[in-house]
Amino acid sequence: MDAIDVIRAKRDGRRLTDEQIDWVIAAYTRGEVADEQMSALAMAVLLNGMDRAETARWAAAMLASGERLDLRGLPRPTVDKHSTGGVGDKITLPLTPLVAACGAAVPQLSGRGLGHTGGTLDKLEALPGWRAQLSPAEIRAQLADVGAVVCAATEGLAPADRKLYALRDVTGTVESIPLIAGSIMSKKLAEGAGALVLDVKCGSGAFMKDLPAARELAAELVAIGTAHGVRTSALITDMSTPLGVAVGNGLEVAEAVEVLRGGGPADVVELTLALAREMLAHTGLSDVDPAEVLASGRAHDTWRRMIRAQGGDPDAEPRRAEHIEPVRADSTGVVSTMDAYAVGLAAWRLGAGRSRKEDAVQAAAGIRCLAKPGDRVRTGDPVLELHTDTPERLPAAREALDGAIAISSEESPRGPLVLDAIR
Amino acid sequence: MDAIDVIRAKRDGRRLTDEQIDWVIAAYTRGEVADEQMSALAMAVLLNGMDRAETARWAAAMLASGERLDLRGLPRPTVDKHSTGGVGDKITLPLTPLVAACGAAVPQLSGRGLGHTGGTLDKLEALPGWRAQLSPAEIRAQLADVGAVVCAATEGLAPADRKLYALRDVTGTVESIPLIAGSIMSKKLAEGAGALVLDVKCGSGAFMKDLPAARELAAELVAIGTAHGVRTSALITDMSTPLGVAVGNGLEVAEAVEVLRGGGPADVVELTLALAREMLAHTGLSDVDPAEVLASGRAHDTWRRMIRAQGGDPDAEPRRAEHIEPVRADSTGVVSTMDAYAVGLAAWRLGAGRSRKEDAVQAAAGIRCLAKPGDRVRTGDPVLELHTDTPERLPAAREALDGAIAISSEESPRGPLVLDAIR
Repeated sequence: MDAIDVIRAKRDGRRLTDEQIDWVIAAYTRGEVADEQMSALAMAVLLNGMDRAETARWAAAMLASGERLDLRGLPRPTVDKHSTGGVGDKITLPLTPLVAACGAAVPQLSGRGLGHTGGTLDKLEALPGWRAQLSPAEIRAQLADVGAVVCAATEGLAPADRKLYALRDVTGTVESIPLIAGSIMSKKLAEGAGALVLDVKCGSGAFMKDLPAARELAAELVAIGTAHGVRTSALITDMSTPLGVAVGNGLEVAEAVEVLRGGGPADVVELTLALAREMLAHTGLSDVDPAEVLASGRAHDTWRRMIRAQGGDPDAEPRRAEHIEPVRADSTGVVSTMDAYAVGLAAWRLGAGRSRKEDAVQAAAGIRCLAKPGDRVRTGDPVLELHTDTPERLPAAREALDGAIAISSEESPRGPLVLDAIR
Repeated sequence: MDAIDVIRAKRDGRRLTDEQIDWVIAAYTRGEVADEQMSALAMAVLLNGMDRAETARWAAAMLASGERLDLRGLPRPTVDKHSTGGVGDKITLPLTPLVAACGAAVPQLSGRGLGHTGGTLDKLEALPGWRAQLSPAEIRAQLADVGAVVCAATEGLAPADRKLYALRDVTGTVESIPLIAGSIMSKKLAEGAGALVLDVKCGSGAFMKDLPAARELAAELVAIGTAHGVRTSALITDMSTPLGVAVGNGLEVAEAVEVLRGGGPADVVELTLALAREMLAHTGLSDVDPAEVLASGRAHDTWRRMIRAQGGDPDAEPRRAEHIEPVRADSTGVVSTMDAYAVGLAAWRLGAGRSRKEDAVQAAAGIRCLAKPGDRVRTGDPVLELHTDTPERLPAAREALDGAIAISSEESPRGPLVLDAIR
């Protein structure tokens, strides 16, 4: 087998055989296929596509490049969740302890943020002492005890994806549904849960800008999971506007805690409960009502145990940023648009995100959305609050927000949050 | 400027701007754009194309990555020739001294072979003592004195192409007309001649398999040359069957000397004269008849001076290979097909070519075509002669020739050698 033959096959619009896919992923993982060969292949895949069977094999080969967590024998059914990434998407934080409190075990292996959407580990690291790195044995023990783990993916899971993900990032080959699907599913299947629910974001703040593209990705993901014997379904949810009020690491943790205490923004509560129901349906726990468990305070108790198990202090008050400035309404009326991408980019520029893997993020930086689409504002009212420790970043953040908020003289009804489900 | 933005632009089917092309080639030459980024861009160019203006700018940027030979002030007009590569294509060897003997100066900077077509330097290195490497000053002095130089391209010419050529070779991105055109023209323009004739090969043994593709490449090349103020034209010539009798380094040198002595196969003589006339037309020497100069022996004298100037012995008898075996006709009739690619591949497998840059070639290995299309043969007649010093290579060479020769019961007229001209 030869890398050039595999590249040429896809370049010339042919299907890759199972043998070609298995070989090229394994040889790339071993370093026998060079980065420049893999990037040429990735570009050919992006432009010429892969069909569903090729995509499934690609994901399987990346899964096979490493180990798979063994979660068999736990006293609870296991279920996992993945979001394709959105602005203000802190749902993992309340959802993981909630579903655990309902009786399942939730192994939530997460990443750090690169780009405008932020990463779950960055958010939790706003809690002093919290430790992202756990061994497979620690993950298993915490799942058995608390039922909930949010931690970094261990080194041995899908190493091919780790390499390819970094390569795609610098070669303009990120935006390919088969490559996105292969990346997500190889990582998620390696986590070893018996069921998986995908939150496929759709809109300006998401990878998938429209519903047909989101449906296509969701269908690919569900097909791959199902083919691997994992009960898999997907919700397609709106990401045209930020989720909740808070965007940014520490701000989002605070909002998650509000939800766990029975408060929080309605959209965050709604999506948390919708995803919890979807997850519970896969685990034989569909008679448990997550809204009741949330109201009972048991999800909050699980959160506290989960954070403490990883060295964090669940009662620490998040530090406020040193500089907080408003963005004010320039007219009176109803907020009709608040562009998720622009808000995400502005929060990133304020210090909530990183532009290189090795950069640090600011725990306190970000944005609070004081009004959301559908809310009435008057000229001069604060609509956003910009938080940063480095005020020299404020002009670039304001620039990102230029044109991001529209205020209309008419009522504009808010669209639904859950747009579709693929099962 | 950012490599990812340039890659994305071409990936998404947009034209690259002059600034993007200039920047990406210069930054790649400096090592600031990584190989994996350039290979992704090359694949995007291969699949989404570049228009004529982009291709011309690409060639210009690669030309600008290095120095350009300064041939001004020579006592003769300068003219260069380039072949896109064919099986048995030794035309450079008789043509260069012939055109010099007609009064022009011919700087023929050449490469080594990689793949089935062989390289001019490999051929001349079959002559003991001959030296491929000359400095720019030596090239200039030999052009002034002898009028003819065949030597290796100097390090400083089109370094971007040197890097990109090696990269394309391992990433399945060779077969792109814009990239081929950019590569050829950046090198040829760097040689600094005032005129250029291209021999664009067409057929099974060539890059361009059919006439429309060959015409497209020829038109691109001519347009780029003209845009740089170089009088440029192209002949499109048949490469469905090997050129002449000899395929392989020393065998081809011997055939070239036959032509210079007034003999040699008719097709080699025909193409040598056609290209010589095309070159002379660009240099104000169109009243000189190259057939007369060839018959006079003056081209052969120039050949001897040219070889001697580079340390070679023009009177050395080429050594014969240690093992010579025939391939015999399996029926009686007229040879209707002798597939150029198969013969080239077989010669390569016998040791005439290399599979990696660092491999050595056998000077004596190759094939002699004892019959050619249009020739009558009887069952058992030798049609090909396989030459090698390493007889263990014979089975693989025979395998390459399987089905390569067709013998028909009917006369089949030979097609023309020169298929078209683009001026």
